[in-house]
Amino acid sequence: MATTSEADAADQVALSQLYRDFEHEHLVPLWTQLGDLMPVQPNSDARPHHWRWSTLAPMAARAGELVPVGRGGERRAIALANPGLGGAPYVSPTLWAAIQYLGPRETAPEHRHSQNAFRFVVEGEGVWTVVDGDPVAMRRGDFLLTPGWHFHGHYNTTGRPMAWIDGLDIPFVRYTDSSFFEFGAEHPETTATPSISRSERLWAHPGLTPVSQAGRRPSSPIAAYRWEHTDRALTDQLDLADKGFPGAVAPGHAAVRFTNPTTGGDVMPTMRAEFHRLRAGVSTATVREVGSSVYQVFSGAGRVRVGDCEYGVDRGDLFVVPSWQPVAITAGVGEHLDLFRFADTPIFEALHQFRAEVTR
Amino acid sequence: MATTSEADAADQVALSQLYRDFEHEHLVPLWTQLGDLMPVQPNSDARPHHWRWSTLAPMAARAGELVPVGRGGERRAIALANPGLGGAPYVSPTLWAAIQYLGPRETAPEHRHSQNAFRFVVEGEGVWTVVDGDPVAMRRGDFLLTPGWHFHGHYNTTGRPMAWIDGLDIPFVRYTDSSFFEFGAEHPETTATPSISRSERLWAHPGLTPVSQAGRRPSSPIAAYRWEHTDRALTDQLDLADKGFPGAVAPGHAAVRFTNPTTGGDVMPTMRAEFHRLRAGVSTATVREVGSSVYQVFSGAGRVRVGDCEYGVDRGDLFVVPSWQPVAITAGVGEHLDLFRFADTPIFEALHQFRAEVTR
Amino acid sequence: MATTSEADAADQVALSQLYRDFEHEHLVPLWTQLGDLMPVQPNSDARPHHWRWSTLAPMAARAGELVPVGRGGERRAIALANPGLGGAPYVSPTLWAAIQYLGPRETAPEHRHSQNAFRFVVEGEGVWTVVDGDPVAMRRGDFLLTPGWHFHGHYNTTGRPMAWIDGLDIPFVRYTDSSFFEFGAEHPETTATPSISRSERLWAHPGLTPVSQAGRRPSSPIAAYRWEHTDRALTDQLDLADKGFPGAVAPGHAAVRFTNPTTGGDVMPTMRAEFHRLRAGVSTATVREVGSSVYQVFSGAGRVRVGDCEYGVDRGDLFVVPSWQPVAITAGVGEHLDLFRFADTPIFEALHQFRAEVTR
Amino acid sequence: MATTSEADAADQVALSQLYRDFEHEHLVPLWTQLGDLMPVQPNSDARPHHWRWSTLAPMAARAGELVPVGRGGERRAIALANPGLGGAPYVSPTLWAAIQYLGPRETAPEHRHSQNAFRFVVEGEGVWTVVDGDPVAMRRGDFLLTPGWHFHGHYNTTGRPMAWIDGLDIPFVRYTDSSFFEFGAEHPETTATPSISRSERLWAHPGLTPVSQAGRRPSSPIAAYRWEHTDRALTDQLDLADKGFPGAVAPGHAAVRFTNPTTGGDVMPTMRAEFHRLRAGVSTATVREVGSSVYQVFSGAGRVRVGDCEYGVDRGDLFVVPSWQPVAITAGVGEHLDLFRFADTPIFEALHQFRAEVTR
Repeated sequence: MATTSEADAADQVALSQLYRDFEHEHLVPLWTQLGDLMPVQPNSDARPHHWRWSTLAPMAARAGELVPVGRGGERRAIALANPGLGGAPYVSPTLWAAIQYLGPRETAPEHRHSQNAFRFVVEGEGVWTVVDGDPVAMRRGDFLLTPGWHFHGHYNTTGRPMAWIDGLDIPFVRYTDSSFFEFGAEHPETTATPSISRSERLWAHPGLTPVSQAGRRPSSPIAAYRWEHTDRALTDQLDLADKGFPGAVAPGHAAVRFTNPTTGGDVMPTMRAEFHRLRAGVSTATVREVGSSVYQVFSGAGRVRVGDCEYGVDRGDLFVVPSWQPVAITAGVGEHLDLFRFADTPIFEALHQFRAEVTR
Repeated sequence: MATTSEADAADQVALSQLYRDFEHEHLVPLWTQLGDLMPVQPNSDARPHHWRWSTLAPMAARAGELVPVGRGGERRAIALANPGLGGAPYVSPTLWAAIQYLGPRETAPEHRHSQNAFRFVVEGEGVWTVVDGDPVAMRRGDFLLTPGWHFHGHYNTTGRPMAWIDGLDIPFVRYTDSSFFEFGAEHPETTATPSISRSERLWAHPGLTPVSQAGRRPSSPIAAYRWEHTDRALTDQLDLADKGFPGAVAPGHAAVRFTNPTTGGDVMPTMRAEFHRLRAGVSTATVREVGSSVYQVFSGAGRVRVGDCEYGVDRGDLFVVPSWQPVAITAGVGEHLDLFRFADTPIFEALHQFRAEVTR
Repeated sequence: MATTSEADAADQVALSQLYRDFEHEHLVPLWTQLGDLMPVQPNSDARPHHWRWSTLAPMAARAGELVPVGRGGERRAIALANPGLGGAPYVSPTLWAAIQYLGPRETAPEHRHSQNAFRFVVEGEGVWTVVDGDPVAMRRGDFLLTPGWHFHGHYNTTGRPMAWIDGLDIPFVRYTDSSFFEFGAEHPETTATPSISRSERLWAHPGLTPVSQAGRRPSSPIAAYRWEHTDRALTDQLDLADKGFPGAVAPGHAAVRFTNPTTGGDVMPTMRAEFHRLRAGVSTATVREVGSSVYQVFSGAGRVRVGDCEYGVDRGDLFVVPSWQPVAITAGVGEHLDLFRFADTPIFEALHQFRAEVTR
Repeated sequence: MATTSEADAADQVALSQLYRDFEHEHLVPLWTQLGDLMPVQPNSDARPHHWRWSTLAPMAARAGELVPVGRGGERRAIALANPGLGGAPYVSPTLWAAIQYLGPRETAPEHRHSQNAFRFVVEGEGVWTVVDGDPVAMRRGDFLLTPGWHFHGHYNTTGRPMAWIDGLDIPFVRYTDSSFFEFGAEHPETTATPSISRSERLWAHPGLTPVSQAGRRPSSPIAAYRWEHTDRALTDQLDLADKGFPGAVAPGHAAVRFTNPTTGGDVMPTMRAEFHRLRAGVSTATVREVGSSVYQVFSGAGRVRVGDCEYGVDRGDLFVVPSWQPVAITAGVGEHLDLFRFADTPIFEALHQFRAEVTR
């Protein structure tokens, strides 16, 4: 009769054999890896990180000298690669953020893809994005949309280079295997330079919808959300708060969300975009949310805490907040701090997986 | 044995007795009145009708001299009574349209009701509507909301009288027995005269939503849709059409719908409001729709055909289009024709009973 | 110089003239009739009323002997006429309720209309309703749908007459001028007598949708909700409540709503239908709601209070609850009370005008 | 003056330096990897694969002898690991599929998690799943839900082991960093063995909703979809098709979708589940869709083509269809082929990224 330890040893051998057989049959036991697969709260591989504009902008300029832009490579875009994601060009598991650079008189070819895209301009002007044939001027403070499956290209009509930020859902679409891509014209078919796009002329009037275009659309038909409107809305919120009326997020903290006027919801199905303004010296609450977000400082300076990291941030700087990491931002003393923010929140809201906590 | 005619006569007697018994028991047979109850297409008791501003405005002024405005009567409003509706103060079975008049320095008391209301200003200025404490200036071309169950009053801060149009769903709410009404302050608690309301400062920025106020609402939070925006949107539509781009309803016919930015749908659950512009000499298509609508000429002049009626219309004139009556409008030759329109369409869309036909 | 009383008299004359001029111009002042137009709470012209089955059924039989059914009259239906509505064949301002009677071997011709319709069977069997070509057996306890714009006729394949209740939104559609009506075949094109309809075979499996038919529909595709399911659901609710689990409305009060499986909402856009069961001796809460409803006793007996009226009710009896009238129902002591109920609630929910109060 | 080749060489050096600098600053150029990031159509790392029940079931039994089930490991579940996904326990990038095994009298501890889960039973019975305190019997052919954040455990009340399939969105939730997990009781607090769950008694009546529970829910409240209903619905569809009526997917191919009765949509926000029946010898169309799906043969046998792979499949066998891979299935000649299927389609529909093609 076998002793217990003999039995144990036999079991150990059998178990090892079982695990080898699992592997051979493309099977994996749950019980050895439950905690990694289903953590008690989001435990992202992505890490908080901070990229300085003073580093990014010159690098983009160097790329401008060395790398042509054209069919194949398509865009002179340099992606922020989250240091926790093994070198993949993803700022977070779901989001792509890149600095794109277009030299004097350069053009970027037309294409379309199922990925949703936007651009945000922290400095410069002189480039037009053409979206399904509609030229859209890009200027400091503007937020510009290229929703999925719209043809788009870029052209610089000036003698100066221009750089801006691209945001897309490339990692999410790659991960979920839902990418479609199609090449368009090698050069944009127009180089017109209207100060306002046709889409704005139809749609960027407050509360007004063209009768001939009524109906819900998955993405906003407004191609450009102009800085003058954003700035005025933030100014108004803070002014109303000063007089004791509601509207701001908190005293000294105003925020607007860019929305789709045909639904009142987010501009695109996978991405939320907002603009925040903090009065000098004001701090946000500490918040953590399911899903990741990226901020870019538009003007002013301040300090940011994301999880255990802390950064001083300046104009143009970007930082990423991985899922469920608490974030708090404090404006510097001299002037107000303006921040552009985008996030993957619509994915979680649509799938009923969103949670948020104000932790302080 | 009874002959056939004796039997027939006996049946006739029995039938008469049956009908008397029905009446006694509060019963009515279907078979004698099917065609009235369920016509093959809408056959409204309401009739097309035309009210001239040149008649309305002086009458309102006479009421201003003779009738005080105050608690009880609440408003110096004179309703357009459709001649087919037996003297009821209803412009159509579902809609109320009235001219309201406020003399120099007068105020109208605050109240709230479940009825949805709006105002449209064809001439004058100097009155503020206060909606839940938010003063809203009224000026020519503005479209102003008082959605159901919001307290509201009016005050004239000037030495001149002012008259405007009120639109409500009073008949619908009366008919469906869903009216709630509550008195508020006898005089508006403020007589402030800001040029822009707080609601506009929060909400009337194109595509921008205050983050603290995100979420769908049954009615638009924009208290005033200003003429400058409406005019620009119409101008833009026609200009785009001139260049071959889509957006207008038809060549020479531009139209915008006032919408709720939190949903992209109509401004209030029961009423649609639009603004149409026809270039000089241009005609609309002939359209008929389930549901009724009311038009007011804002500027210009033209000819209107509603069913079998035809009218010459001028600035300030109103006319009503009963359900399923074909309507066509032609702008006069001299200048473009601007028309404000409201309708009960959202009721039918919500209940899946809407139909429309372009009959020519 | 005129004295005050002379001035008053002059004003009186001027006012009378103004009111005459209003009338001539199809205008009506608001201030003289505000309370009627906009009551502080719903104040329906409709009155609570009670119709006894012991009166209705014999009258329907008499009509069966005297009145043929066929093209033109279309249906041998006798409508319940609310005593407050001036003789109109409306059980409430929005709802139609009628007893329909079909003699041995009789048929009722096919037609379709924009009005939504249902049938509820309190006794008998032997008639089939054919809905867009699908024969649907009618048996005691069944709730059967004919949503707007579906062709339908009826045929009795037996030697016995049958009577049942029809519910429609005829008054609402008449009032809102949205009626469309079309004649079909003079006799139903089939007289098949399947025990289950095709619609049930596709749709009446709990939680299962045919993949080829997926998508939202305005009305339920289930043509018949069978008594066996309703009865079992009510039995289950009360049994679960006995064991301390949630699900019933209140102890001894179970209720199910007939729903559209493609949306989870009401069976048709304008009407809600429910079945309530009260254990012997149990009373409902006193509830008032915006909108009207009609109840029919399916089995058992009890007492009903609607506003200031009180009725003893028995099997087959119907009663109407006008808008905002409080209603409370108590089951008799001997056995449970089963009640079918229908209401216009979806209209108010869709238009954001619904309110309800449990008043005791 | 430098020659061209000297300049080229210098550029090459500069470019290498730029790429090194990118890496140091956590930046990655787009232009070198566009095709991988944004393929012209989905190009999944996942591969078609086929697991035989005759392999799976004995391995699960071996695990039953060697591996205890209890707190920590939580479940004796063995995951199907797609051979293209580097050994991760994921059947596709978004989906988890595992065989779970519970020995005689064993229990699996209670826990809850944000991941949505279901079970499907291909053979056996005797285990109850308890979901938020409600015991749910598991029997051959049943489809059982454990939507996100519901406590659940399992217990086997018999002397025989039982194995079944678990489906979850573990990879999607892991990837999107939205996992929350909480331990519950170490043993289910009840071992009751009702033949029907409380959730079914409230909700599994066709078209009937408990009035007290009305309202939309993100997931279906029906805990178990029973085989008897599924089988009858499929039989009815094929029978109707034989008589020339619509309802089946195609001649000889019936399919039902498990749906949430409160919305008419999918049972859970991230997963679709269906049951397909093919008559002997019948083939499906060749279809490709965005998103991945997993099939299990419930009865019968057949041949399957997925992309370039082809398998003979038998009762209990599972196979996976990666995104955009064409799939076609043919039933064997002897008897009909019944297939359970689940997929991640609701993710793509919610985010407006779904596409499908019938390629033959």
